Amino acid sequence: MQALADRLRAERRIVFVPTMGFLHEGHLSLIRIARNAGDVVVVSIFVNPTQFGPGEDFQEYPRALDRDLALAEKEGADIVFTPSEAELYPEGFETYVHLERLPRHLCGLSRPVFFRGVATVVTKLFHIVKPHAAVFGEKDYQQVMVVKKMVRDLNMDVEIIAGPTVREPDGLAMSSRNSYLSKEQRRSALSLRKALIEAQQMVSSGERSSARIVSAAKDSIASFPETDIDYIRIFDPETLEDRKEINGPVRMALAVRVGSTRLIDNDLLNPAR
Amino acid sequence: MQALADRLRAERRIVFVPTMGFLHEGHLSLIRIARNAGDVVVVSIFVNPTQFGPGEDFQEYPRALDRDLALAEKEGADIVFTPSEAELYPEGFETYVHLERLPRHLCGLSRPVFFRGVATVVTKLFHIVKPHAAVFGEKDYQQVMVVKKMVRDLNMDVEIIAGPTVREPDGLAMSSRNSYLSKEQRRSALSLRKALIEAQQMVSSGERSSARIVSAAKDSIASFPETDIDYIRIFDPETLEDRKEINGPVRMALAVRVGSTRLIDNDLLNPAR
Repeated sequence: MQALADRLRAERRIVFVPTMGFLHEGHLSLIRIARNAGDVVVVSIFVNPTQFGPGEDFQEYPRALDRDLALAEKEGADIVFTPSEAELYPEGFETYVHLERLPRHLCGLSRPVFFRGVATVVTKLFHIVKPHAAVFGEKDYQQVMVVKKMVRDLNMDVEIIAGPTVREPDGLAMSSRNSYLSKEQRRSALSLRKALIEAQQMVSSGERSSARIVSAAKDSIASFPETDIDYIRIFDPETLEDRKEINGPVRMALAVRVGSTRLIDNDLLNPAR
Repeated sequence: MQALADRLRAERRIVFVPTMGFLHEGHLSLIRIARNAGDVVVVSIFVNPTQFGPGEDFQEYPRALDRDLALAEKEGADIVFTPSEAELYPEGFETYVHLERLPRHLCGLSRPVFFRGVATVVTKLFHIVKPHAAVFGEKDYQQVMVVKKMVRDLNMDVEIIAGPTVREPDGLAMSSRNSYLSKEQRRSALSLRKALIEAQQMVSSGERSSARIVSAAKDSIASFPETDIDYIRIFDPETLEDRKEINGPVRMALAVRVGSTRLIDNDLLNPAR
């Protein structure tokens, strides 16, 4: 892959879509964005162990390589890179990329090794695939911000493109983890999107207090069965620091366990909307 | 530099010599090695603040840019890259490359941020200069091992070449920090090399106990004025773990303060020699 990338890079624009596989319409939309952003589209499929903490779902994470290969090819991927765990993390592996501030918010608080794992594997994959640009889904908003910051801080010559969240017809953000949900849990999963819509409605009606919006969101989500809120935050879109008052565009993000499945979602809250 | 490197890399082999400037014959030997190892030689000069701890000599570190530029050009450097601190570490910088094991030995113990700073700045410079190969001096043996491990772990497509330690006629390892030494301290600085030679003599005479060799080295160095030993270790050349018995080639390294100047040196100890 590295030798091929080095040759390709000299004449063509490589655009990279890193994934953990079990591709859904969200991933496919990122492949389409990549298709339009360059000449060679590389998709990687790798369930990265270092971003899962103890007790998280690394073992259970859904895998479907043959189906993924067919989907990626159909969507126009030129190369699908599927390294093994032993290739990427040989015995004695000890080097990590770590951000000091951005991971101290949101998902980084409940998943302490997550962003170190993401930053490390993305760095490794960038070194192997040598892309000019890479596409990440905005559903994982904090991840996009962490990758952008890492790229800037470490002078990586890679343009980061964020692709909009793709949703099911009823509004649920697409995620490989949705496959864990029972039929009833699938209904409760809608509570995340509902809370985001209600929050924007409150802001549009003149509410400026993040505390009151978050409080309403908590009540709204708690009214669904089997929900357990990890966090609901309204924050500065760049620094991810909490915003108490909504005086301009901010971001709202939430993580909710539905049964034992942890789901996340986020959206812009805009007083001018 | 990045745009230029991207263009150059397509057709020519870039070999990189990262330095902190105040070039001496040791650096120039690395430039000559680079000259022979590729088509384009890039030398960087940057006194990297993140590898200096509080109370260390970042402010005092000797600088002589004009002289360095002339020396590098004379030795055959094609490009000298001299970034500013503000360019490499803009406000809000927060991303570091960290190794978990190799820095827990030798210099890493007395300089806890050193190898994080080295790994981070070398990563940044590799992303900017995009070299096929990079040359580091073996005087900083642990640094060479850390960089090699980082390159392997993070899949950097860079060959690491180690250049042998260059010494003054009387045996003192060349170092920009030698410029700190008074005339008397300059004599005491010879104690490092002397201890290494005596250690190899003991090994050649059949001594196999690291403890006895280190003990003799301590006595030898302590007999010189103004010396204060930081560490003397005999260790596995790959893992840097202590070796109690010398049953094959091992490495011996030492760090000694002479006055307020911290000097390091190292060499192979080989029972077959």
